[in-house]
Amino acid sequence: MTDVRQDALHIAQKAIEAVLPENAVEAALRGEAFSARAQSGGRIVLTAIGKAAWRMAKAAAETLGDRLDGGVVVTKYGHSNGPIKGVEIFEAGHPFPDENTIKGTARALERVGGLSAEDTVLFLVSGGGSALFEKPGEGITLRDLVGVTDQLLACGADIVEINTIRKRLSSVKGGRFAQFVAPAHVFSVVLSDVLGDRLDSIASGPAYPDGSTAADASRIVGKYGLSLSPVLQKALEKETPKSLENVTTLITGSVTALCKAAEREVAALGYAPLLLTTTLNCEAREAGAFIAAMAKEIRSSGNPASPPCALLLGGETIVRLKGKGKGGRNQEMALAAAFGIKGLADTAVISVGSDGTDGPTDAAGGVVDGGTIGVLSGLGLDAEALLADNDSYHALDACGGLVKTGPTGTNVNDLSILLCR
Amino acid sequence: MTDVRQDALHIAQKAIEAVLPENAVEAALRGEAFSARAQSGGRIVLTAIGKAAWRMAKAAAETLGDRLDGGVVVTKYGHSNGPIKGVEIFEAGHPFPDENTIKGTARALERVGGLSAEDTVLFLVSGGGSALFEKPGEGITLRDLVGVTDQLLACGADIVEINTIRKRLSSVKGGRFAQFVAPAHVFSVVLSDVLGDRLDSIASGPAYPDGSTAADASRIVGKYGLSLSPVLQKALEKETPKSLENVTTLITGSVTALCKAAEREVAALGYAPLLLTTTLNCEAREAGAFIAAMAKEIRSSGNPASPPCALLLGGETIVRLKGKGKGGRNQEMALAAAFGIKGLADTAVISVGSDGTDGPTDAAGGVVDGGTIGVLSGLGLDAEALLADNDSYHALDACGGLVKTGPTGTNVNDLSILLCR
Repeated sequence: MTDVRQDALHIAQKAIEAVLPENAVEAALRGEAFSARAQSGGRIVLTAIGKAAWRMAKAAAETLGDRLDGGVVVTKYGHSNGPIKGVEIFEAGHPFPDENTIKGTARALERVGGLSAEDTVLFLVSGGGSALFEKPGEGITLRDLVGVTDQLLACGADIVEINTIRKRLSSVKGGRFAQFVAPAHVFSVVLSDVLGDRLDSIASGPAYPDGSTAADASRIVGKYGLSLSPVLQKALEKETPKSLENVTTLITGSVTALCKAAEREVAALGYAPLLLTTTLNCEAREAGAFIAAMAKEIRSSGNPASPPCALLLGGETIVRLKGKGKGGRNQEMALAAAFGIKGLADTAVISVGSDGTDGPTDAAGGVVDGGTIGVLSGLGLDAEALLADNDSYHALDACGGLVKTGPTGTNVNDLSILLCR
Repeated sequence: MTDVRQDALHIAQKAIEAVLPENAVEAALRGEAFSARAQSGGRIVLTAIGKAAWRMAKAAAETLGDRLDGGVVVTKYGHSNGPIKGVEIFEAGHPFPDENTIKGTARALERVGGLSAEDTVLFLVSGGGSALFEKPGEGITLRDLVGVTDQLLACGADIVEINTIRKRLSSVKGGRFAQFVAPAHVFSVVLSDVLGDRLDSIASGPAYPDGSTAADASRIVGKYGLSLSPVLQKALEKETPKSLENVTTLITGSVTALCKAAEREVAALGYAPLLLTTTLNCEAREAGAFIAAMAKEIRSSGNPASPPCALLLGGETIVRLKGKGKGGRNQEMALAAAFGIKGLADTAVISVGSDGTDGPTDAAGGVVDGGTIGVLSGLGLDAEALLADNDSYHALDACGGLVKTGPTGTNVNDLSILLCR
């Protein structure tokens, strides 16, 4: 018989595995949508951009074998790990684009130029794609782009405003990559790591219709009194695509996928899953208290579910630092929950960051059960004082409550589970 | 067609009504347990103690009619409202017992003395009962009791420690009232207003087996170095009843009853209810954000329930005051939730205190919907700034989001509901 704490660790581990770039890409390519596309028999050329581009491309090459007609990877310096058959690999600047960005992007465009309607561009997008995929618009230089971004940052423009301007100064952003590739089809696999993010802003949406307009851009120029050359002014007036007929987009590795994978693992171990939210965004310790209050209800009245059951939550909580301790939002949530579930048998709470790095620590998160607070007292530790000092790491470390996975190379936010046997 | 906001108000109103002292007592006396007892044909004598004693006794007299053989009410000054047939009414000191406490209690004991096994003492208990029902032990004076309590408070003893000592210095607390009444049966109706409280500590448990021991008392005396007369020392050595065969206890007007009543009303309006917890105790604004995150999930994926549905939560959240505004925990939770449900159609969040008084305001709580933040912006109000200033009252007042019931005379904590049509 396994115990509830081991079950929690197993479930979290499996859920994170399901959203790793390799597994996400393989699942996407084995899915119905891509299979239907691949059966057309046309060429399949790869463009992979972002911090996980090499891993995604490698998985695509292994999944597709000879069916893949090569392509280009543009990833961050230090983020590739050897050759991939038929694929050219570029490492470039992040978070600021550099000459290698321009070179890699140009080569990617060459590889997908001149394709026909039965051909497919397999477009693999991960975090950092905005900096790593860039071809400035006609007559515009990389220096122009950096200059405009600097102006926008200096006057306090927000990320939506910055993207609205930058998309228009680019030949690939704001749907223009898909426009360039037409009539070939773009099959886009997006490894999403932005909570509730809009598709047109992930990597500045090279293959997604642009939600912003030239009128928006003009308003932003006026609002901040931006100083622009005539070439840049003209570029801002040109409209971006508002609809694209040649694109299929598959969001994968999202927090929803993380929670769905957890649901499957939970059910496989005999617990009834109940997904509460995929957008949790409140304070970590308060979320822990809230979850513990539900644990008590499950134990006393069988609401909102009867054991064996699991409540699942995805999202990204926050920590308001007041103390000087070491920890992260997942560790803090778990430790806070430990107080509320104190004394409850067969009850565990686990919270982990899918990137494997919770706060400035080497842990992915924490796991606690009804005995945790007792164990800490027995060790002579004041768990309340540790929590108050934001020192969840040392509290959990002392009682074997740290969850360590190492960096996973993916980041689809956090998963929290209340498990009641 | 009613709208979701009106539904929320109706449900909260009905749920609070169900736990008012009158309705709680009437429901208890019409229930199976009491009916079975009353059929024995013996006498029924009433003892009602606490701040709601008069209201509970009045409802009992009206429900039982001639079946009630009178009794005694001991309530706080200003808390009775006219004669009740056959019932003697005493008003006395609260939170500190006075001579009228002693007089009323003595009279109550006279009325229930000498009853036989087929007779019933209807014992109605509400908040404040500990101060309002007291007969000091043999040779002990009211001044002795006050002196010991003062010592305990001065040295930082907690409420459990204080009760452990006080029960032993009393002739009615710690189960001794039930012992005195035997062989008659005690049918106890407890209006519970203490979150997760133990039955032996509500009103110091006159009719409940005592969970503390003489050994505990001795430890407390040693811990704080209490100075006690020989009479008091001897009283502390005498054990309190550890089992009582002649008592039936019905907890009513609890937060659970409040949530159950809400479940019934919710279902009657066609929403599927899902009770999440009856012990919510985290920060109000964070609970609001958490609830809103679940609202988004319900709208986007139908988890944890499909509309029309309602998530129900009971408990008592807290507010950490940072600003200088006006508000209460329920108003703050509702306003915080409004941000998260912004733009969601047919979605409302209501949170109310069952006592009708949320914080230092004349409102019981607040109600918001997906349009609330838009309405506030339209009025030129900065809702985020108001929330940051703990000024939920003025934000909700401006958009018709205050819930006002007036003081209800009961206090079984708070009810929060997320309603999705």
